[in-house]
Amino acid sequence: MQEIEEKSSRSELRAIVREQLRLLLEDRNWEGVKTLLLPVQPVDIAEAIDGLPKAMQLTAFRLLSKAEAVEVYEHLSTDIQQSLIEEFRDSELLEIVNSMAPDDRAGLFDELPPRLVRRVLAQLSPEERKATSQLLGYQAGTAGRLMTPEYIALRYNLTIKEASDRIRQLARDREVSYYVYVVDEQRRLMGVASLRDVLLADLDQFLGDIINPDVVFAQTDTDQEEVARSIQRYDLVALPVVDRDHTLVGVVTVDDAIDILQKEATEDIYIMGAVRSEGESYFQSNLATITRKRIPWLFILLITNALTILVMSNFEAVLDEVVALAFFTPLLIDAGGNVGAQSSTVVIRGLSTEELKYKKPLWVIIRESMTGGLLGILLGVVVIGMVFVFLGQIEIGLTVGISLLCITIIAATAGAGLPFLFHSFGLDPALMSSPFITTIVDILGIWIYLSTAKLLLGL
Amino acid sequence: MQEIEEKSSRSELRAIVREQLRLLLEDRNWEGVKTLLLPVQPVDIAEAIDGLPKAMQLTAFRLLSKAEAVEVYEHLSTDIQQSLIEEFRDSELLEIVNSMAPDDRAGLFDELPPRLVRRVLAQLSPEERKATSQLLGYQAGTAGRLMTPEYIALRYNLTIKEASDRIRQLARDREVSYYVYVVDEQRRLMGVASLRDVLLADLDQFLGDIINPDVVFAQTDTDQEEVARSIQRYDLVALPVVDRDHTLVGVVTVDDAIDILQKEATEDIYIMGAVRSEGESYFQSNLATITRKRIPWLFILLITNALTILVMSNFEAVLDEVVALAFFTPLLIDAGGNVGAQSSTVVIRGLSTEELKYKKPLWVIIRESMTGGLLGILLGVVVIGMVFVFLGQIEIGLTVGISLLCITIIAATAGAGLPFLFHSFGLDPALMSSPFITTIVDILGIWIYLSTAKLLLGL
Repeated sequence: MQEIEEKSSRSELRAIVREQLRLLLEDRNWEGVKTLLLPVQPVDIAEAIDGLPKAMQLTAFRLLSKAEAVEVYEHLSTDIQQSLIEEFRDSELLEIVNSMAPDDRAGLFDELPPRLVRRVLAQLSPEERKATSQLLGYQAGTAGRLMTPEYIALRYNLTIKEASDRIRQLARDREVSYYVYVVDEQRRLMGVASLRDVLLADLDQFLGDIINPDVVFAQTDTDQEEVARSIQRYDLVALPVVDRDHTLVGVVTVDDAIDILQKEATEDIYIMGAVRSEGESYFQSNLATITRKRIPWLFILLITNALTILVMSNFEAVLDEVVALAFFTPLLIDAGGNVGAQSSTVVIRGLSTEELKYKKPLWVIIRESMTGGLLGILLGVVVIGMVFVFLGQIEIGLTVGISLLCITIIAATAGAGLPFLFHSFGLDPALMSSPFITTIVDILGIWIYLSTAKLLLGL
Repeated sequence: MQEIEEKSSRSELRAIVREQLRLLLEDRNWEGVKTLLLPVQPVDIAEAIDGLPKAMQLTAFRLLSKAEAVEVYEHLSTDIQQSLIEEFRDSELLEIVNSMAPDDRAGLFDELPPRLVRRVLAQLSPEERKATSQLLGYQAGTAGRLMTPEYIALRYNLTIKEASDRIRQLARDREVSYYVYVVDEQRRLMGVASLRDVLLADLDQFLGDIINPDVVFAQTDTDQEEVARSIQRYDLVALPVVDRDHTLVGVVTVDDAIDILQKEATEDIYIMGAVRSEGESYFQSNLATITRKRIPWLFILLITNALTILVMSNFEAVLDEVVALAFFTPLLIDAGGNVGAQSSTVVIRGLSTEELKYKKPLWVIIRESMTGGLLGILLGVVVIGMVFVFLGQIEIGLTVGISLLCITIIAATAGAGLPFLFHSFGLDPALMSSPFITTIVDILGIWIYLSTAKLLLGL
């Protein structure tokens, strides 16, 4: 194994494991499976099981050691978690779900049908059931739902010696993060110390003497994206969560923060690409679901296009006179759409990563308008030449060029301005996605184009 | 301070700090500034300084304590770091840059003009200069450049007692991460133990007995995105980096991984939005740079649109006969562009987050084509009705409807297929962005539309 690992990258190794696992299962070589999976990371085992035919998944899962089974289970995709639960014996169910971290368990319950949740809750120990219910009591998408109750909190009046002993004790049955949270008699968060601070302090100092009181924390109802951004901003490994009384109730860990930031980026990308996102994985959805997620924007597009058609039909006489004008509508529409998309992209992303948080919207919008104008002039000059080559007519070239300039300015201004508008109403700025801008620019752009034509060509 | 903090969110607090800092500096109230900034996190101080007028930045920076100054400096934006360096006295320069972590320093050197790099390198202690040169020896964008040489590595044959003493000793002058890396006599990476493992082990056990030998690591030349994805995948806080001989040379920490993943997401979003991205922050660039980053796609668009114009001019007779046909080109173009963007968005993001890594491209493309067909049928039915309402003509309605169906299928297929094609050539699939698809769909779509019209209307 070590040899393979040194020669090839880990992702090639993962491909080998997936391949081998299937072959060994087909051969019913159970010992071979166990040997194969022994040195493999749980998340990679989960990936390999995800890729197996349905019929083999349970078999493969049952070949894992108890300790490994729990970790692998947490990394399986939701539909496989669910189909396994259905087939588990009660004793297996108890073992797996009882050993899961409370926050992972709450996450699983969000996805399971209520019937299964009831079956699983009935199997939990009273203690674990309480921990899970508490988490489920907080709204999805908040720090409360995301936090784990497994952390180290110690009283401020312990000596370093006592604290070290206590840490060693607590480490037996819970993950230890890099931080020790220090609380008062009412478990109110007073400050934080790193394990390093504890290691370096004198044994007879008090914990209260070495803490950093300026601790970055979240409330139970803080939005999960804000929590993740704080962890990123302050380079933290974990962030404590307090309730209304400033009592420490949990911590959010950096691995959850990464997953949230990735999910939020995917959501932004999807919305900008005119795909509605509802959290679940696209590649597990069926065609009807996918279609349902994409049709809304397309219908909005139809409606706004009806207006474009109306504008054009009002200029039927102009088009009838110079039919060549119609040749350039695709160019104008594409240019407007793309310039608008460029401006909205940088503004939406800037708002999302907070880079734009303290910039004045007006400053950004004016900058974008000017950029739109510059782009319009550059494109316009080329287009006037292009039209002249095609038609040998300078008037139509001028018409297209002037309209192009107006359209790029409008598109850039709308592309920059509308996300700010949405943001100030408390809506997701990414909703202000390109299809919306495209169609707005279409209507105005076509009107400007045909009006200019009417004027310049004297129709 | 504590009171404000409990009542308002941290981001409101940051706004207050920025406001106050400026007022106090204008009043030349130096003591006030010191008191204000005392409990504020370095990254928030850096943000406040970033927001000050140029003339006040150096003054504010000089009011910081020495220890804080280094941390604040690391969080300043590049242009302010640079302008401060220019104004620093040599003693200040020495203090700041010598105290920076080697990886942050290497990152800074990447941004500075060579003249300044030489001045700074001359000020470094020989030891720090060596550490920095080593990092600068690795290519930008690799694990080698990203890693920090500050980590804890211990020999496998130490007892837990010896290891604990050594950890306490090492903690004095370096950050301690949560992992202890275990190496052999040649410093080759043998395995990893967590501080928790060390805390729980018996004092007379050997380090070699408690390590996990299946450690996830990177090579110095591993791409930074792959490093970040490994940290995310295996829920790590740090990832060890080894050279060709498997010798441990550094670690990459999770905070760097988050920043990389965010940067990569921004790059994907920018490219999809037809904005070229070159790493530096958009909001610090001037108009000429911004225009230069956006014009390439727009020129490509012009060229492909020339083909669309050519196609349309070939059908001039058809358009001349039924000018109303021109009314519906914007609709067809927008629909094709949006359906294509939807398909390419999910495929590009899926490739980027590795969700698609083991799906068969053909399966995905067929799914997308079918989705395109479904969307086309739904939209087509509505459009036929719409055209009938506008024109009272069923033939034109049918023409538009049938073309729409063809266009959505082509758009979805191209939108899904082209990113895979780019990916298989080793190119960034996000390059296959919507403007590219839009214009391809334009040409084919307009041709199908006008051909169908010619046929159905008998022109």
